[in-house]
Amino acid sequence: MNDYTRFLSPTGRQLQESAIRRMGTVVASREDVVSFAPGYPDAAAFPWEELREIGQSLLTGSDHDTLQYGPTRGCGPLREAIAELLCSRNIAAGIDDLLITSGSQQGLDLVARVLVTPGDVVLVELPAYTGAIAAFANAQARLAGVVQDDDGINLEDLDRVCRRERGAGRRVNLLYLVPNFQNPTGRLLGREKRQRLLEWAARRDVLIVEDDPYGSLYFDDVTSVEETRAIRADDRLGRVIYLSSFSKTLAPAFRVGWIVAPASLIDRFETAKQSADLMTGSLDQRIVYEALRRGVIDRLAPRLRDLYRRKRDVMEEALRAELGDRLRWLVPKGGFFLWVALPAGCDDSALLAHALECRLVFVQGSAFYVDGTGHDRIRLSFSAPSLERIQEGACRLSVALSHALAGERTTR
Amino acid sequence: MNDYTRFLSPTGRQLQESAIRRMGTVVASREDVVSFAPGYPDAAAFPWEELREIGQSLLTGSDHDTLQYGPTRGCGPLREAIAELLCSRNIAAGIDDLLITSGSQQGLDLVARVLVTPGDVVLVELPAYTGAIAAFANAQARLAGVVQDDDGINLEDLDRVCRRERGAGRRVNLLYLVPNFQNPTGRLLGREKRQRLLEWAARRDVLIVEDDPYGSLYFDDVTSVEETRAIRADDRLGRVIYLSSFSKTLAPAFRVGWIVAPASLIDRFETAKQSADLMTGSLDQRIVYEALRRGVIDRLAPRLRDLYRRKRDVMEEALRAELGDRLRWLVPKGGFFLWVALPAGCDDSALLAHALECRLVFVQGSAFYVDGTGHDRIRLSFSAPSLERIQEGACRLSVALSHALAGERTTR
Repeated sequence: MNDYTRFLSPTGRQLQESAIRRMGTVVASREDVVSFAPGYPDAAAFPWEELREIGQSLLTGSDHDTLQYGPTRGCGPLREAIAELLCSRNIAAGIDDLLITSGSQQGLDLVARVLVTPGDVVLVELPAYTGAIAAFANAQARLAGVVQDDDGINLEDLDRVCRRERGAGRRVNLLYLVPNFQNPTGRLLGREKRQRLLEWAARRDVLIVEDDPYGSLYFDDVTSVEETRAIRADDRLGRVIYLSSFSKTLAPAFRVGWIVAPASLIDRFETAKQSADLMTGSLDQRIVYEALRRGVIDRLAPRLRDLYRRKRDVMEEALRAELGDRLRWLVPKGGFFLWVALPAGCDDSALLAHALECRLVFVQGSAFYVDGTGHDRIRLSFSAPSLERIQEGACRLSVALSHALAGERTTR
Repeated sequence: MNDYTRFLSPTGRQLQESAIRRMGTVVASREDVVSFAPGYPDAAAFPWEELREIGQSLLTGSDHDTLQYGPTRGCGPLREAIAELLCSRNIAAGIDDLLITSGSQQGLDLVARVLVTPGDVVLVELPAYTGAIAAFANAQARLAGVVQDDDGINLEDLDRVCRRERGAGRRVNLLYLVPNFQNPTGRLLGREKRQRLLEWAARRDVLIVEDDPYGSLYFDDVTSVEETRAIRADDRLGRVIYLSSFSKTLAPAFRVGWIVAPASLIDRFETAKQSADLMTGSLDQRIVYEALRRGVIDRLAPRLRDLYRRKRDVMEEALRAELGDRLRWLVPKGGFFLWVALPAGCDDSALLAHALECRLVFVQGSAFYVDGTGHDRIRLSFSAPSLERIQEGACRLSVALSHALAGERTTR
């Protein structure tokens, strides 16, 4: 029996693959590829020595819970420590408003399953993070795109799209966005817009899903911590579901993220998580807890800000030197990504084909657009490669772009 | 804003809570409770020293991938090692037929999402594992129960229920079962029945979801490894989706399970996993891989078989001594559970209420039945408590049962 199509559910038939993950597979299968594709943190910056010590102290056998099943909601001390961390982000959340998730991606998935009825519209930015698009699409949502300005989502377009979708008889309950150093654009949502979004959400009876993986990775030459203030910090009405994780501030291996939401919704997310994976890894949660308790994460943060800012600078300089007259981009104020506009006559698929010939990989702009556009953009991630590899990648991109503009056929 | 009900999806409204997980919460919140509830392995038997050494060797920083994002499908060496392990279970599976999951529970969830269309019928045993019931129910399946004999699922009833549901115009694609030391009954599915199930699945065009977390925990005073041969081992037609995990054979903390299925289905499960949690923890996967490679898991297996067999013996002896004339049970041939029939006039809820008064907890039989029956059964787990606590629990159960039979009102 080879054809299992008849057994597939609607979700099973329509599953959305993540373009970013696909590029990861390409990288893994080729040698000497420069990867500007996945938003991986720089593994050389992981606090290996401290984590090794933490591992040693946890695996003594003195606390049996370390390797045992644990509560779906997450390990108690970690939840308390996250509540404290949130306090430093001006977010008041008790431990009943908190659920530990298996990475932020699971947070998105739980939100989608609990809050999206098939056919519902979810409002997302144009462009938006592909993992969120996939999570909502796999819950059978319709995705409606809202354009962005340089300071983030355009509020007039937001209201227009919301009214248009409701006018067409569709339910619109959720707006998803990444206010800090958006994936893929690196944009920072303006302070005043954050306030106005809260008012808008109350007026239109919509919940805001605020995804904040990069907030602490701001670059202080062009912005400040005050500009990253979470929308949730000023949410007096319970309109915001806030997601974050330790994947960018410690290491992705641990799959520890969390959701902040009103307690009644946390109850639902928790029940959904029970049948999704029972719980997040016990050892992982304890390692993250110890890294918080011992100040490892706090000490690391300024070093990461410097590191990624330097990488951004190197990528910008290399691109300017190699391709300055042909490409335009926004200066990222934080995070991992450079969002690049291609010159006329060059589209993202053709450029990617040529780039692969040159052993360079990135993510096509169109992967982030729910309206089929974006072929004039690409996302370059500067976070993982070394400074030398960033230089080398810029050279390869220059060659690939010349080939693409010359309209040369690739042999692939 | 306090009422979020209007935002909930049908899944969000109907979410099934796991009775087992609920009992876990009860235990966590009370002192000196004897817990026969959750099927936790015995943490004293975890190979702490070896795992500590493995942690040390992995966290040196020499392999950056250890703490980095990794492929959704799972880390390559671990997949190869699992393919080898499967070989020893007579299961021929290439690495393209394998997906690492975040525990077996995620395997169930992915199967449900990819293969269950809302309204579809999933056939399950009466009784069946509550985590599977929840995963299928949360994908909006209708669950139809099939009775069991002492040697597992009754094939005549299976065919009758399948024809009845199809006769009513419903789609029936999946049969879920735990052939080895079933949760909750501890039953072992007969060898000949396994063969006949394959023939039946082909005849009725149904896929079998074979969940095998306990297979290697057989008790050799009453059975042998040959009797645990997986249905998948003889599946020539691609009818079986096989799930297993390391939660019972190493430790649950790591959340490492896997699915074996035809490659085209693995592709779908992988895509569903991308949006569910991106990947299973990198460090966890490497710890499990090292535990396999170094022979830790192989060396542990016979010790675990002896340990749990001894615990079963102690629980049986204690129950016989304290309550022998009032309770009946099946002798478990492996696994973690004693499935107990209550005397007439005592139902599982009343007994549980009295047990909680006596600081004893177990899982009500009715939690495992999709047809509303099972109030005359309870599940006692002997795996986690020490021998002394098993004795103590049996004494408390005796008191609780006396109270329940006397019809005393509890103060709760």
